[in-house]
Amino acid sequence: MELTNNFITIKAHIDGEPKETDFENKARHLALSVAPCSNDIIVKNLYVSIDPYQINRMKSWSSSQKATKITVSIVIEAYGVGKVEASGNPEFAKDDLVVGLLIWGEYSLLKGEYILRKLDPMGFSPSYHIGILGHSGLTAYAGFFEVCKPKKGEKVFVSTACGSVGNLVGQYAKLFGCYVVGSAGSKEKVAFLKEKLRFDDAFNYKEETDLKTTLKRFFPDGIDIYFDNVGAEMLEAAVANMNFFGRVAACGVTSQYNDAGKRCAPDMEGVVYKRIKIQGFISIDHMDIFSDFVSTTAYHLHAGDIQAIEDISLGLKSIPLAFIGLFHGHNIGKKIVKIADE
Amino acid sequence: MELTNNFITIKAHIDGEPKETDFENKARHLALSVAPCSNDIIVKNLYVSIDPYQINRMKSWSSSQKATKITVSIVIEAYGVGKVEASGNPEFAKDDLVVGLLIWGEYSLLKGEYILRKLDPMGFSPSYHIGILGHSGLTAYAGFFEVCKPKKGEKVFVSTACGSVGNLVGQYAKLFGCYVVGSAGSKEKVAFLKEKLRFDDAFNYKEETDLKTTLKRFFPDGIDIYFDNVGAEMLEAAVANMNFFGRVAACGVTSQYNDAGKRCAPDMEGVVYKRIKIQGFISIDHMDIFSDFVSTTAYHLHAGDIQAIEDISLGLKSIPLAFIGLFHGHNIGKKIVKIADE
Repeated sequence: MELTNNFITIKAHIDGEPKETDFENKARHLALSVAPCSNDIIVKNLYVSIDPYQINRMKSWSSSQKATKITVSIVIEAYGVGKVEASGNPEFAKDDLVVGLLIWGEYSLLKGEYILRKLDPMGFSPSYHIGILGHSGLTAYAGFFEVCKPKKGEKVFVSTACGSVGNLVGQYAKLFGCYVVGSAGSKEKVAFLKEKLRFDDAFNYKEETDLKTTLKRFFPDGIDIYFDNVGAEMLEAAVANMNFFGRVAACGVTSQYNDAGKRCAPDMEGVVYKRIKIQGFISIDHMDIFSDFVSTTAYHLHAGDIQAIEDISLGLKSIPLAFIGLFHGHNIGKKIVKIADE
Repeated sequence: MELTNNFITIKAHIDGEPKETDFENKARHLALSVAPCSNDIIVKNLYVSIDPYQINRMKSWSSSQKATKITVSIVIEAYGVGKVEASGNPEFAKDDLVVGLLIWGEYSLLKGEYILRKLDPMGFSPSYHIGILGHSGLTAYAGFFEVCKPKKGEKVFVSTACGSVGNLVGQYAKLFGCYVVGSAGSKEKVAFLKEKLRFDDAFNYKEETDLKTTLKRFFPDGIDIYFDNVGAEMLEAAVANMNFFGRVAACGVTSQYNDAGKRCAPDMEGVVYKRIKIQGFISIDHMDIFSDFVSTTAYHLHAGDIQAIEDISLGLKSIPLAFIGLFHGHNIGKKIVKIADE
C-alpha cells in the first residue's frame, strides 16, 4: 500500500523569531512496507512533541548544532508516540505502541540507527510519555534532584514556570518540601501556578521593572536553587539574590533563542564568594535514572499529587503555530500536537 | 615592655583602583604582655600575605563582604607567619612559630576567637606556609582536583597563570598529566611559564585582540578545564572554546575587582548544550583535605618537581605598593611582605 505522507519542514534556516512563513507542508509518497531484513520501521505518528530547543537546530549556527542541525526541506525530528505500521526489525511488530524520535509528520520512516522503544502507557494517555513521563519530565526530575541536590525547606525559584519543564520542577520541589516561587508571562499563568499547582508564590515578570528587586521581595532570605529556563537578566537577578552554596540548573535559554545578542552577565564575584554552581545539563545524560524517574512520577500521578499539564493542538498543520506560540508564551504546560487517533 | 606597633590601614573605602594615597601607616602603643587567663596572644609578624581578593573587603560594598569588610583606620587582617611574643593561651608559648590570620603590621594582638596554629616549617622557609603550603596552595589544589576533577590528558587553561594560585594550578596540572596553557600579562611572564614552569604553552593576553580566536589557536581540540582568575572576556572566550562536560573553577575575578561594570557574558546556550559547570569556590571550604594537600605538596617540593614561586618585598612600609602592584601585574608568584627576621 502506498500513501502520501505529509510533513512539516523549514524553507530556510531561521535566525530571528520564527514565523509561520518559515515553515511549509510537504508531501512524499510512502510505501507502507519495509524489506523483511532491512531493520527499517514505519510508524504512524499519534502525538509529537513541540519544544523550544528545536529552534536552535533550525538556525544557521548554534552551540547546540554539534549534535543535530535541521536541514532545509527535510523532515524535522521530534519525540513522539506512534503505532508501528510496518517493521523489518524483529523487536517491533505491526500495531505496537512506540515512543521515540519520530518526525513532525503523519508517518515516520526510521532507518539505520534510531531511538525507539515499545511503550506500555501504564494506564495514562500515550501523550504523557512525551511529556511528564518523557524527556520533559526527566529534564525536570534530573535537573532538580541530580543537578541541584535539594534539601527540604530550601528556597527554589523556577523561571518559565508554566512551561513543560518548569511546571514539573515546581511540582517536584513542592512535593519534596521546598518553598517554590515561579515566574511566568501572564496574570492567568500566575494564578494557575498558585491555585492549580500550589506554588508558594508566583509573579508575572512582564509587570516587573527590576528583577533583582522583585526576587528580593519574593525571597527575603535568598534563593538556594534556581532552575533557569531563560538566562539573561533573570539569571543575573537570581545570582544576585542567591544564598551561599546556591545552585543554578541551566536548562534552557529562551531569552537567547531568538536573540543571540541577549546575554546574561552574572556577577562573577558573587559566584566565587557565594560558591555558586551553574551547571548546564540535558536530560539524555541522565538516562541511568530514567526508570526511577518514571516509576516515581507514575506513582505520584496515580496518587494525584502531581498533575500532567498538557496543551494539545490538533492536526499536523497546527505544528508551525504551536511551535511559534512557544516563543510568545501561548502554552501552559507541555505543548503537544496530536496527529492522529490511535 | 611597651613598644610602638606600626600597621597599615586604609584612609577611606576604596572603590576604584587602589592608589598609594589610599593607605596610611599608623602607630599604636602596645604592651608586650597579656593577662594570664585572657586567652590573648601577641605575635611578632615575620611574613604577611598580599592577596588581590583583599580589595573587595576594602570597598564600600562587595558581594564578599557578608563575611568581612575592612573598617577604615583599623588594622587589616591578612594571613601571616609570626613568632609568639606573649600568650595567655596555654596552647601557645613564647617563641612558638605560628601561622594564621594576623595583620598588616609589626605585631598582631589576637583576642577572642582567632585563627592560629603552631607551625612546623617542615624544612621550608616559613613564608611557604602562607603561599604554596598555605591558602594559595590549597586554593589551587582544591580548585583543580576537587572542583574540576581532572582526567589525565585533559586540556587545561589557566588565567593569571603567573599569580600565586595560577602558577600552582599549572604545576599541579602538568604533574597530573594534563596539557596546560597559561595566560599572563607580559613577555617575561610568558617565558617564565614556558621555560621555568614547563607549561605546554602560554600567551600574553595584552597582545591578543580576540580572545576567542586566541584560545581556538591554543586549544584546537577545545578546553576541558578552565581555572578562572579573571572573569569577563576571558571567561566568555573560554566557555566558547570549551568541550562538552567542561568545567570552570571560578576562583577570582580580577577584571571586576577594580571595575564592577566589567562583566562576563558567557553564551548560556553553550553552557546548557555543552553541559558546562561553572563553580565558585573558596579554599576554606576545603579544609578537610588540608593535610592531604600539605603532605602531597611538601612531597613534590622535596622531590623538586614543584617549585615555590615567591615575590617578596621587604618591610612593613612596602605593603601598599606590594598590594597595588598586584593589580598591575607586577608580581610573579606569591606576593609576600617580609616584616621582620625570625
